[in-house]
Amino acid sequence: MNKIAGYVLSVAALAMATPATAQFQKPEDAVKYRQSAFTLMGNHMGRVGAMVNGRVPFDAKAAQDSTRVLALISTLPGQAFAANTESVQSKALPAIWKEQDKFKAGYDKMVAEVAKLDAAAKTGNLDAIKTAFGEVGGTCKSCHDNFRAK
Amino acid sequence: MNKIAGYVLSVAALAMATPATAQFQKPEDAVKYRQSAFTLMGNHMGRVGAMVNGRVPFDAKAAQDSTRVLALISTLPGQAFAANTESVQSKALPAIWKEQDKFKAGYDKMVAEVAKLDAAAKTGNLDAIKTAFGEVGGTCKSCHDNFRAK
Repeated sequence: MNKIAGYVLSVAALAMATPATAQFQKPEDAVKYRQSAFTLMGNHMGRVGAMVNGRVPFDAKAAQDSTRVLALISTLPGQAFAANTESVQSKALPAIWKEQDKFKAGYDKMVAEVAKLDAAAKTGNLDAIKTAFGEVGGTCKSCHDNFRAK
Repeated sequence: MNKIAGYVLSVAALAMATPATAQFQKPEDAVKYRQSAFTLMGNHMGRVGAMVNGRVPFDAKAAQDSTRVLALISTLPGQAFAANTESVQSKALPAIWKEQDKFKAGYDKMVAEVAKLDAAAKTGNLDAIKTAFGEVGGTCKSCHDNFRAK
Protein backbone atom coordinates (compact mmCIF):
# COMPACT_ATOMS: atom_id res chain seq x y z
CA MET A 1 0.00 0.00 0.00
CA ASN A 2 1.43 3.38 -0.84
CA LYS A 3 2.07 5.83 1.95
CA ILE A 4 -0.54 8.42 1.05
CA ALA A 5 -3.27 5.80 0.96
CA GLY A 6 -1.97 4.57 4.29
CA TYR A 7 -2.05 8.08 5.62
CA VAL A 8 -5.57 8.66 4.39
CA LEU A 9 -6.72 5.43 5.97
CA SER A 10 -4.96 6.13 9.23
CA VAL A 11 -6.42 9.62 9.41
CA ALA A 12 -9.83 8.20 8.68
CA ALA A 13 -9.40 5.62 11.44
CA LEU A 14 -8.14 8.32 13.77
CA ALA A 15 -11.04 10.59 12.91
CA MET A 16 -13.53 7.86 13.70
CA ALA A 17 -11.82 6.99 16.96
CA THR A 18 -10.94 10.39 18.35
CA PRO A 19 -11.87 13.33 16.14
CA ALA A 20 -9.83 15.85 18.11
CA THR A 21 -6.55 14.13 17.21
CA ALA A 22 -6.69 15.03 13.51
CA GLN A 23 -4.23 17.70 12.43
CA PHE A 24 -7.05 19.69 10.89
CA GLN A 25 -10.42 20.42 12.45
CA LYS A 26 -12.12 20.90 9.08
CA PRO A 27 -11.19 19.98 5.49
CA GLU A 28 -11.05 23.73 4.75
CA ASP A 29 -8.34 24.08 7.37
CA ALA A 30 -6.24 21.49 5.57
CA VAL A 31 -6.65 23.31 2.26
CA LYS A 32 -5.67 26.62 3.82
CA TYR A 33 -2.69 24.92 5.48
CA ARG A 34 -1.32 23.44 2.28
CA GLN A 35 -1.96 26.67 0.34
CA SER A 36 -0.07 28.59 3.02
CA ALA A 37 2.86 26.21 2.78
CA PHE A 38 2.96 26.56 -1.00
CA THR A 39 2.75 30.37 -0.75
CA LEU A 40 5.84 30.42 1.47
CA MET A 41 7.61 27.94 -0.81
CA GLY A 42 6.81 30.02 -3.88
CA ASN A 43 8.21 33.12 -2.26
CA HIS A 44 11.45 31.48 -1.21
CA MET A 45 11.86 29.69 -4.55
CA GLY A 46 11.49 33.15 -6.09
CA ARG A 47 14.24 34.55 -3.90
CA VAL A 48 16.65 31.76 -4.81
CA GLY A 49 15.54 31.91 -8.44
CA ALA A 50 16.37 35.61 -8.63
CA MET A 51 19.96 34.77 -7.71
CA VAL A 52 20.08 31.74 -9.99
CA ASN A 53 18.85 33.82 -12.90
CA GLY A 54 21.21 36.69 -12.11
CA ARG A 55 18.42 39.18 -11.48
CA VAL A 56 19.92 39.88 -8.06
CA PRO A 57 23.51 39.43 -6.87
CA PHE A 58 24.28 36.05 -5.33
CA ASP A 59 24.13 36.19 -1.54
CA ALA A 60 25.15 32.83 -0.09
CA LYS A 61 23.66 33.58 3.33
CA ALA A 62 20.32 34.70 1.89
CA ALA A 63 20.22 31.64 -0.35
CA GLN A 64 20.86 29.36 2.61
CA ASP A 65 18.22 31.11 4.69
CA SER A 66 15.66 30.47 1.95
CA THR A 67 16.63 26.87 1.23
CA ARG A 68 16.48 26.06 4.93
CA VAL A 69 12.90 27.37 4.96
CA LEU A 70 12.14 25.40 1.79
CA ALA A 71 13.63 22.19 3.20
CA LEU A 72 11.32 22.25 6.20
CA ILE A 73 8.16 23.65 4.64
CA SER A 74 8.33 21.31 1.65
CA THR A 75 7.61 18.46 4.04
CA LEU A 76 4.39 19.99 5.33
CA PRO A 77 1.68 20.21 2.66
CA GLY A 78 1.66 16.49 1.80
CA GLN A 79 -0.30 15.74 4.97
CA ALA A 80 -3.06 18.13 3.88
CA PHE A 81 -4.38 16.26 0.84
CA ALA A 82 -6.58 13.78 2.68
CA ALA A 83 -9.56 12.45 0.74
CA ASN A 84 -12.00 14.68 2.62
CA THR A 85 -10.37 17.77 1.12
CA GLU A 86 -11.19 16.83 -2.48
CA SER A 87 -14.57 18.58 -2.37
CA VAL A 88 -13.18 21.85 -1.02
CA GLN A 89 -12.90 24.52 -3.71
CA SER A 90 -9.25 24.95 -4.67
CA LYS A 91 -6.89 24.51 -7.60
CA ALA A 92 -6.23 20.91 -6.61
CA LEU A 93 -7.40 18.64 -9.42
CA PRO A 94 -9.27 15.35 -8.87
CA ALA A 95 -6.24 13.58 -10.38
CA ILE A 96 -4.53 13.96 -7.01
CA TRP A 97 -6.94 11.42 -5.54
CA LYS A 98 -7.39 9.36 -8.71
CA GLU A 99 -3.63 8.92 -9.23
CA GLN A 100 -2.41 8.86 -5.67
CA ASP A 101 0.73 6.83 -6.40
CA LYS A 102 1.84 9.28 -9.07
CA PHE A 103 1.01 12.29 -6.91
CA LYS A 104 2.83 10.85 -3.93
CA ALA A 105 5.89 9.95 -6.02
CA GLY A 106 6.02 13.48 -7.44
CA TYR A 107 5.61 14.97 -4.01
CA ASP A 108 8.37 12.82 -2.54
CA LYS A 109 10.67 13.73 -5.44
CA MET A 110 10.02 17.42 -4.79
CA VAL A 111 10.92 17.03 -1.10
CA ALA A 112 14.09 15.12 -2.03
CA GLU A 113 15.18 17.69 -4.63
CA VAL A 114 14.55 20.54 -2.20
CA ALA A 115 16.77 18.76 0.34
CA LYS A 116 19.47 18.58 -2.35
CA LEU A 117 19.01 22.29 -3.07
CA ASP A 118 19.45 23.02 0.63
CA ALA A 119 22.63 20.94 0.67
CA ALA A 120 23.89 22.75 -2.44
CA ALA A 121 23.19 26.15 -0.85
CA LYS A 122 25.24 25.13 2.17
CA THR A 123 28.27 24.65 -0.10
CA GLY A 124 27.93 28.26 -1.25
CA ASN A 125 28.61 27.15 -4.83
CA LEU A 126 26.29 29.02 -7.18
CA ASP A 127 26.68 26.48 -10.00
CA ALA A 128 25.63 23.67 -7.68
CA ILE A 129 22.69 25.79 -6.55
CA LYS A 130 21.69 26.46 -10.16
CA THR A 131 21.66 22.75 -10.99
CA ALA A 132 19.70 21.80 -7.89
CA PHE A 133 17.30 24.71 -8.36
CA GLY A 134 16.52 23.48 -11.87
CA GLU A 135 15.71 20.02 -10.53
CA VAL A 136 13.36 21.45 -7.91
CA GLY A 137 11.71 23.65 -10.52
CA GLY A 138 11.10 20.60 -12.66
CA THR A 139 9.23 18.90 -9.82
CA CYS A 140 7.13 22.05 -9.22
CA LYS A 141 6.22 22.22 -12.91
CA SER A 142 5.42 18.54 -13.17
CA CYS A 143 2.95 18.69 -10.29
CA HIS A 144 1.42 21.96 -11.47
CA ASP A 145 0.98 20.50 -14.97
CA ASN A 146 -0.64 17.30 -13.76
CA PHE A 147 -2.42 18.13 -10.56
CA ARG A 148 -3.19 21.85 -10.42
CA ALA A 149 -5.83 23.84 -12.27
CA LYS A 150 -4.42 26.57 -14.50
CA MET B 1 17.10 53.24 15.79
CA ASN B 2 14.98 50.19 16.37
CA LYS B 3 15.42 47.20 14.10
CA ILE B 4 12.06 47.28 12.35
CA ALA B 5 12.53 50.93 11.43
CA GLY B 6 15.99 50.03 10.21
CA TYR B 7 14.53 47.19 8.22
CA VAL B 8 11.86 49.37 6.69
CA LEU B 9 14.45 51.96 5.75
CA SER B 10 16.84 49.39 4.32
CA VAL B 11 14.08 47.81 2.28
CA ALA B 12 13.05 51.23 1.03
CA ALA B 13 16.66 52.01 0.09
CA LEU B 14 16.96 48.62 -1.57
CA ALA B 15 13.73 49.11 -3.46
CA MET B 16 14.90 52.45 -4.77
CA ALA B 17 18.29 51.07 -5.77
CA THR B 18 17.37 47.67 -7.21
CA PRO B 19 13.67 46.85 -7.10
CA ALA B 20 14.18 43.20 -7.97
CA THR B 21 16.10 42.52 -4.76
CA ALA B 22 13.10 43.04 -2.50
CA GLN B 23 11.71 39.86 -0.96
CA PHE B 24 8.24 40.74 -2.20
CA GLN B 25 7.30 41.97 -5.65
CA LYS B 26 4.12 43.67 -4.40
CA PRO B 27 2.87 44.74 -0.97
CA GLU B 28 0.03 42.22 -1.42
CA ASP B 29 2.62 39.46 -1.71
CA ALA B 30 4.08 40.46 1.64
CA VAL B 31 0.63 40.37 3.27
CA LYS B 32 -0.10 36.95 1.81
CA TYR B 33 3.32 35.75 2.95
CA ARG B 34 2.85 36.82 6.55
CA GLN B 35 -0.72 35.50 6.64
CA SER B 36 0.52 32.15 5.35
CA ALA B 37 3.18 32.01 8.03
CA PHE B 38 0.62 32.77 10.75
CA THR B 39 -1.77 30.15 9.34
CA LEU B 40 0.91 27.47 9.67
CA MET B 41 1.86 28.73 13.12
CA GLY B 42 -1.77 28.66 14.25
CA ASN B 43 -2.16 25.10 13.07
CA HIS B 44 0.97 23.86 14.82
CA MET B 45 0.20 25.79 18.00
CA GLY B 46 -3.16 24.04 17.89
CA ARG B 47 -1.51 20.64 17.65
CA VAL B 48 0.76 21.30 20.62
CA GLY B 49 -2.10 22.95 22.49
CA ALA B 50 -4.26 19.85 22.11
CA MET B 51 -1.58 17.86 23.94
CA VAL B 52 -1.01 20.57 26.53
CA ASN B 53 -4.71 20.72 27.27
CA GLY B 54 -5.07 16.94 27.36
CA ARG B 55 -7.48 16.80 24.44
CA VAL B 56 -5.14 14.35 22.73
CA PRO B 57 -2.54 12.02 24.25
CA PHE B 58 0.95 13.49 24.58
CA ASP B 59 3.17 12.39 21.69
CA ALA B 60 6.71 13.71 22.22
CA LYS B 61 7.73 13.18 18.58
CA ALA B 62 4.65 14.95 17.23
CA ALA B 63 5.18 17.81 19.65
CA GLN B 64 8.80 18.18 18.56
CA ASP B 65 7.82 18.07 14.90
CA SER B 66 5.41 20.94 15.46
CA THR B 67 7.70 23.05 17.62
CA ARG B 68 10.50 22.69 15.05
CA VAL B 69 8.13 24.07 12.43
CA LEU B 70 7.09 26.85 14.81
CA ALA B 71 10.69 27.77 15.64
CA LEU B 72 11.53 28.35 11.99
CA ILE B 73 8.28 29.85 10.75
CA SER B 74 7.99 32.25 13.70
CA THR B 75 11.05 34.06 12.31
CA LEU B 76 9.47 34.69 8.90
CA PRO B 77 6.49 37.05 9.09
CA GLY B 78 8.34 39.93 10.75
CA GLN B 79 9.98 40.84 7.44
CA ALA B 80 6.56 41.23 5.82
CA PHE B 81 5.29 44.28 7.74
CA ALA B 82 7.10 46.94 5.73
CA ALA B 83 5.46 50.36 5.62
CA ASN B 84 4.14 49.83 2.10
CA THR B 85 1.90 47.01 3.33
CA GLU B 86 -0.12 49.22 5.69
CA SER B 87 -2.62 50.16 3.00
CA VAL B 88 -3.29 46.55 1.95
CA GLN B 89 -6.59 45.26 3.34
CA SER B 90 -5.91 42.86 6.21
CA LYS B 91 -6.46 42.48 9.93
CA ALA B 92 -3.21 44.31 10.65
CA LEU B 93 -4.00 47.48 12.60
CA PRO B 94 -2.34 50.87 11.96
CA ALA B 95 -0.84 50.59 15.47
CA ILE B 96 1.78 48.25 13.97
CA TRP B 97 3.31 51.17 12.11
CA LYS B 98 2.45 53.82 14.73
CA GLU B 99 4.02 51.85 17.59
CA GLN B 100 6.83 50.08 15.80
CA ASP B 101 9.03 49.69 18.87
CA LYS B 102 6.24 48.01 20.81
CA PHE B 103 5.29 45.80 17.86
CA LYS B 104 8.89 44.77 17.26
CA ALA B 105 9.47 44.04 20.95
CA GLY B 106 6.36 41.87 21.06
CA TYR B 107 7.37 40.08 17.89
CA ASP B 108 10.88 39.41 19.17
CA LYS B 109 9.45 38.11 22.44
CA MET B 110 7.21 35.72 20.51
CA VAL B 111 10.16 34.37 18.53
CA ALA B 112 12.17 33.94 21.73
CA GLU B 113 9.35 32.16 23.57
CA VAL B 114 8.76 29.86 20.60
CA ALA B 115 12.46 28.97 20.67
CA LYS B 116 12.06 28.10 24.36
CA LEU B 117 9.01 25.97 23.54
CA ASP B 118 11.04 24.13 20.92
CA ALA B 119 13.79 23.54 23.47
CA ALA B 120 11.21 22.32 26.00
CA ALA B 121 9.70 19.92 23.45
CA LYS B 122 13.15 18.44 22.85
CA THR B 123 13.33 17.48 26.53
CA GLY B 124 10.14 15.47 26.12
CA ASN B 125 8.89 16.84 29.46
CA LEU B 126 5.21 17.68 29.17
CA ASP B 127 5.25 20.00 32.19
CA ALA B 128 8.07 22.03 30.63
CA ILE B 129 6.14 22.12 27.38
CA LYS B 130 3.01 23.32 29.18
CA THR B 131 4.88 26.19 30.81
CA ALA B 132 6.59 27.25 27.59
CA PHE B 133 3.38 26.89 25.61
CA GLY B 134 1.63 29.25 28.01
CA GLU B 135 4.37 31.84 27.52
CA VAL B 136 4.07 31.60 23.73
CA GLY B 137 0.29 31.86 23.95
CA GLY B 138 0.67 35.03 26.00
CA THR B 139 2.75 36.63 23.24
CA CYS B 140 0.17 35.59 20.61
CA LYS B 141 -2.64 37.11 22.66
CA SER B 142 -0.77 40.32 23.40
CA CYS B 143 -0.13 40.98 19.72
CA HIS B 144 -3.65 39.99 18.68
CA ASP B 145 -5.08 42.29 21.35
CA ASN B 146 -2.96 45.27 20.37
CA PHE B 147 -2.25 44.92 16.69
CA ARG B 148 -4.90 42.76 15.04
CA ALA B 149 -8.49 43.59 14.16
CA LYS B 150 -11.05 41.38 15.87
